[in-house]
Amino acid sequence: MPLTPHPLDPLSLDEIASVASVVRALTPNNEEIFRVITLAEPPKKELTGYLDAEHARRTPRPLKRVAKVHAYIDKAFHEIFVDVNERSIVFHDVLHGRHSHIDSAYMKKVEAACLQDEHVQAEIDSLHLPEGATVIVEPWTYATDGMNDMRERTTMCWFYMRLSTHEDANYYAYPLNIVAEVSESLQVKSISRLPSGANEELNSVRKPYDHNKVHTSSEYHPDLSTSRRTTTKPLRIIQPEGPSFQINGNHITWEKWTMRIGFNYREGLTLHDVRYDNRSLFYRLSLSEMFVPYGDSRCPYPRKGAFDLGNDGAGVNANNLKLGCDCLGHIKYFDAWHTTSSGEPLKLPNVVCCHEQDDGILWKHTNFRTGNAVVTRSRLLVLQTIITVSNYEYVFVWYFGQDASIHYEVRATGILSTAPIDVGDKVPFGTVVAPGVLAPYHQHLFCLRIDPALDGHRNSLVVEDSVPMPFPDKSNPFGVGYVTDSKIVEEEGGHDLDHFKGRTFKIINENKINPTTDTPVGFKLLPYYSQLILAHPSSYHAKRSEFGQHAVWVTRHKDEELYASGNHTMQSLGGEGVASWIKARAEDGNAETGVKDEDIVVWHTFGSTHNPRIEDWPVMPAEKMVVGLKPFNFFNGNPGLDVPISTQEKNQSVLVGEKDPARVEKEAQRPKL
Amino acid sequence: MPLTPHPLDPLSLDEIASVASVVRALTPNNEEIFRVITLAEPPKKELTGYLDAEHARRTPRPLKRVAKVHAYIDKAFHEIFVDVNERSIVFHDVLHGRHSHIDSAYMKKVEAACLQDEHVQAEIDSLHLPEGATVIVEPWTYATDGMNDMRERTTMCWFYMRLSTHEDANYYAYPLNIVAEVSESLQVKSISRLPSGANEELNSVRKPYDHNKVHTSSEYHPDLSTSRRTTTKPLRIIQPEGPSFQINGNHITWEKWTMRIGFNYREGLTLHDVRYDNRSLFYRLSLSEMFVPYGDSRCPYPRKGAFDLGNDGAGVNANNLKLGCDCLGHIKYFDAWHTTSSGEPLKLPNVVCCHEQDDGILWKHTNFRTGNAVVTRSRLLVLQTIITVSNYEYVFVWYFGQDASIHYEVRATGILSTAPIDVGDKVPFGTVVAPGVLAPYHQHLFCLRIDPALDGHRNSLVVEDSVPMPFPDKSNPFGVGYVTDSKIVEEEGGHDLDHFKGRTFKIINENKINPTTDTPVGFKLLPYYSQLILAHPSSYHAKRSEFGQHAVWVTRHKDEELYASGNHTMQSLGGEGVASWIKARAEDGNAETGVKDEDIVVWHTFGSTHNPRIEDWPVMPAEKMVVGLKPFNFFNGNPGLDVPISTQEKNQSVLVGEKDPARVEKEAQRPKL
Repeated sequence: MPLTPHPLDPLSLDEIASVASVVRALTPNNEEIFRVITLAEPPKKELTGYLDAEHARRTPRPLKRVAKVHAYIDKAFHEIFVDVNERSIVFHDVLHGRHSHIDSAYMKKVEAACLQDEHVQAEIDSLHLPEGATVIVEPWTYATDGMNDMRERTTMCWFYMRLSTHEDANYYAYPLNIVAEVSESLQVKSISRLPSGANEELNSVRKPYDHNKVHTSSEYHPDLSTSRRTTTKPLRIIQPEGPSFQINGNHITWEKWTMRIGFNYREGLTLHDVRYDNRSLFYRLSLSEMFVPYGDSRCPYPRKGAFDLGNDGAGVNANNLKLGCDCLGHIKYFDAWHTTSSGEPLKLPNVVCCHEQDDGILWKHTNFRTGNAVVTRSRLLVLQTIITVSNYEYVFVWYFGQDASIHYEVRATGILSTAPIDVGDKVPFGTVVAPGVLAPYHQHLFCLRIDPALDGHRNSLVVEDSVPMPFPDKSNPFGVGYVTDSKIVEEEGGHDLDHFKGRTFKIINENKINPTTDTPVGFKLLPYYSQLILAHPSSYHAKRSEFGQHAVWVTRHKDEELYASGNHTMQSLGGEGVASWIKARAEDGNAETGVKDEDIVVWHTFGSTHNPRIEDWPVMPAEKMVVGLKPFNFFNGNPGLDVPISTQEKNQSVLVGEKDPARVEKEAQRPKL
Repeated sequence: MPLTPHPLDPLSLDEIASVASVVRALTPNNEEIFRVITLAEPPKKELTGYLDAEHARRTPRPLKRVAKVHAYIDKAFHEIFVDVNERSIVFHDVLHGRHSHIDSAYMKKVEAACLQDEHVQAEIDSLHLPEGATVIVEPWTYATDGMNDMRERTTMCWFYMRLSTHEDANYYAYPLNIVAEVSESLQVKSISRLPSGANEELNSVRKPYDHNKVHTSSEYHPDLSTSRRTTTKPLRIIQPEGPSFQINGNHITWEKWTMRIGFNYREGLTLHDVRYDNRSLFYRLSLSEMFVPYGDSRCPYPRKGAFDLGNDGAGVNANNLKLGCDCLGHIKYFDAWHTTSSGEPLKLPNVVCCHEQDDGILWKHTNFRTGNAVVTRSRLLVLQTIITVSNYEYVFVWYFGQDASIHYEVRATGILSTAPIDVGDKVPFGTVVAPGVLAPYHQHLFCLRIDPALDGHRNSLVVEDSVPMPFPDKSNPFGVGYVTDSKIVEEEGGHDLDHFKGRTFKIINENKINPTTDTPVGFKLLPYYSQLILAHPSSYHAKRSEFGQHAVWVTRHKDEELYASGNHTMQSLGGEGVASWIKARAEDGNAETGVKDEDIVVWHTFGSTHNPRIEDWPVMPAEKMVVGLKPFNFFNGNPGLDVPISTQEKNQSVLVGEKDPARVEKEAQRPKL
């Protein structure tokens, strides 16, 4: 092992501190300037050479460690790349008209400024809130709607109240019909009353709070909510010989899989150099972006549209996972490092958990002639991270299978974002989940970035439909024949799912032919069937989240294209995501646009059109979305063929007896027929 | 508890014996006449009254126990209904031109007759098989193709060989290119050579066996196959206080759920009177049918099309599940009773397992203001049954959630059905998985029958799309608004999925309005997106499996309509499934066809277009298909809100330490930056 960090290792606390000191030297003021100090991953060209050497057991040539820094210096947003070992700045730009991701310290100031504003106070007074109410301001980034000049940071303040003295009382159960806009300089620019009925508009009618909205059914915290069921008996995972994985720093070895994990403030967990049985599969796997546009058409609700990665950050919002609560069994936790605004390394503890899970039958066959059954159970490696973005929680899980399959699961849970509604009113774009509480319709759109390296970096995307053979036709006399219609995608672009055609998307390596099937080796994408973005193509929501236009995209690999809605989503104006990259290259006569047998990236857009049901309230049972990647004529047979046969000796299950005295008695007493 | 069986209890061994004696009296010969002696479930009209009384804690009026009997008497196929307690025949019909489900004893006779036929022997001799080869005949039911008169039972015999002396050697790895047709009276009617190349037809060219096909990579049995990986360490489920379920005969109580299980030779596991928190949800849930049509267009392959329920039976083919192998944790097994051909009760042991499973996070929220996280883990009740149908295995699993969700999972595993192919040849409707072994394309089409009883039996089906609001329009100034477009289905018929519209299917009770949402209570179907049947509508495959035409069907409830391809699928000619029922009623001026606010049944067709990959060989890693049912504005909030909070005290997970001395050393030695 080299003594220097691996090129994919996130910056260490020492590296962060060192980089901070380099950047701090740029400004005489000892300001709280830092937003981000993170690893700038090496260019793919360099890193692949390094990894190749590593896997060939040659000593790799060390790569330059570079940090990407986001800092506000004299109110300007700087992007600075620092050579970590040389302690020198290698690139420096001021990003005019751009904004860094959410600054929670600033958001706290917005809250305070808003609550202290005398006009806001007057507005609150006019509500005549119930005795003991505590008003809560929930500041949100402003989703561009064309009504404000977006060069300056603007914050939307939504109002709620807490009736209980308990700090964890669910204030989303009491949305107030006030909204305020706060400027960069913490001035309240406007205060309005929110619409209530379907056709009502943003207005200034000072209606008092309707005390009929007070209710007790919206608490989730165990101190406050309904009594707990006592029927659920304990269930524990015992691994007497410990887990089957080995961890070496950020490198994981498990059941023929090897991979490196990365972690950054924005994407959270990233996976690198994913291999099975020493064969290269994926260069990098990551959640690229997610967007949550709300479908309530009334001003100012179109300003609700959250880029939970680009604006909030899946890394900085990652939960500190708790043993026995978030994860069951033998758990290895990974920490991450972020930075404080003053440039001190900030530990993000337990942001990723790594453990194993039983997943039922992996494969089974009973020879009906002998009655002999052979059965194996499926063991999964689980890499889980959970993020909290204000009201919502997202559980992101990678599952690795012994059959060389990968599944990526998103669970949406947490609390619905709510808006006030008059008691008795209804709107067509939301569900009333409690008195006076509207849960508006919205979508969750995720974009998974798949950078394949199937036996090398030159891969292709295949769109394959299953189609009936012509009929009537000599080749198909009985009308039952069907074949596959496969097309290799030649140019960058977006594609859609079609279950009517059994459409599958495969990533293949045309240069590597499976000797048995005589077809290129490949992996198949198991998409999650989802509705695409509902907002009109000319809306800011749609223009800002271009990845929402198609389910599957393919582009040529570019180091700088990691984020499907562009690098800076905060108050973005659109026109800078995956569709724009493709369009720009297609229109540029000199750009290369071919994706056949090239270094490609495949992007999968999926998610849910979440029209809330009352069962999602006051806290939402996890809604699962699962995407898969499975080998397709890549190996030379079932990669899990050698998984140990299941035995009771190993698994030690317990037989539950017939503990039913009533029935036993009945059997005994029943007269013989 | 009454001393008599519950009306939904399967026939007991005593009842079977008693019914057999009634039917045996019909024939003077002591023949082996019996195929089926099973419970004829009471008419819904009667049973609902019984269940209502039960739930109201009134003494229910006992219902007549009736058995359905299939028997061959003097070579005619009889269907007989017997009053079990009166020991009298209440209905008796001779089903001319119909066939009972597969008779494995008869199939053995077919095998023997085929192998003993001198023409067959001559054909085998002409193959010049390798030394020590054992020829195996695999008899299949004949999927109607229009080439034979289907009034007589006809069996297709496919030929394989086993090279190893081991009885569990995988003979599917050696398909021989002989095929024979055997008549009802065990006469070999024809012998042919199978086609090999894409355009080659069924023929009589006596090519010898190509010894280049001999290979060693196709074994799955641990005695024969590759060495096992040793890296998978044991993982056990410990339930120190036992399981959370209570079993009383066939009645299950678990975490607010109650239900009764049934089991019969055809459907296998059935669920009845499914309730949550004392509210009625589903009257009956069952897998209604499945069909596996093969896509190889060459004669005689269109004769491969298996109704694995109607022809084979999910009940009689259910595996005897083994503790610690098929199921992990605390397991309750259920046995079932079938009948021998002489009418003796035949025990089918351990055909259903019932246990619990941890399923990760059920819900979580962290209040970002206090940092307090509340998390619950999801516990599932699992009811699993596994069937073997010749080469294939299907794992059928019902999962019940603490959030009142139900998921039905099918896992396809086992061995691909194979056909011979010349070494070096390719065909467009199959994958070569080993030398000389073609795995032809095929579909697995399942039909789930959902008989809802959401707060009563008068329910409706809603088709709901999420659609953008008009734009430009005053109601939608920013172009981001969307609403739902809901239509209650008025007439029986078939419907399709549309993920582009975010289409959802809901079952609702219009007579029961959720007081908070002010909408009818309902459950939402989470369909499994699948390609529909690829065979041409005029083909026998399509005509026989009408349910494959649409993803969702709704019909008026009829006691006699349990099986989506009709009661007798063996060599059926089509025109007797769900589409035909609907058509017949629509064309009958007097029939009632309305399904709004009626006693309805919803049918969901799903499955996979299985174009084999080499990774499915020699035994297939389970391919999962999952369908869900979730409450939608049925309850008054998250039904799992009261699930106990997760704690380490209860769950006792184990922290995996940083056991990486190399890295620790590296950290220590690395010079400070």
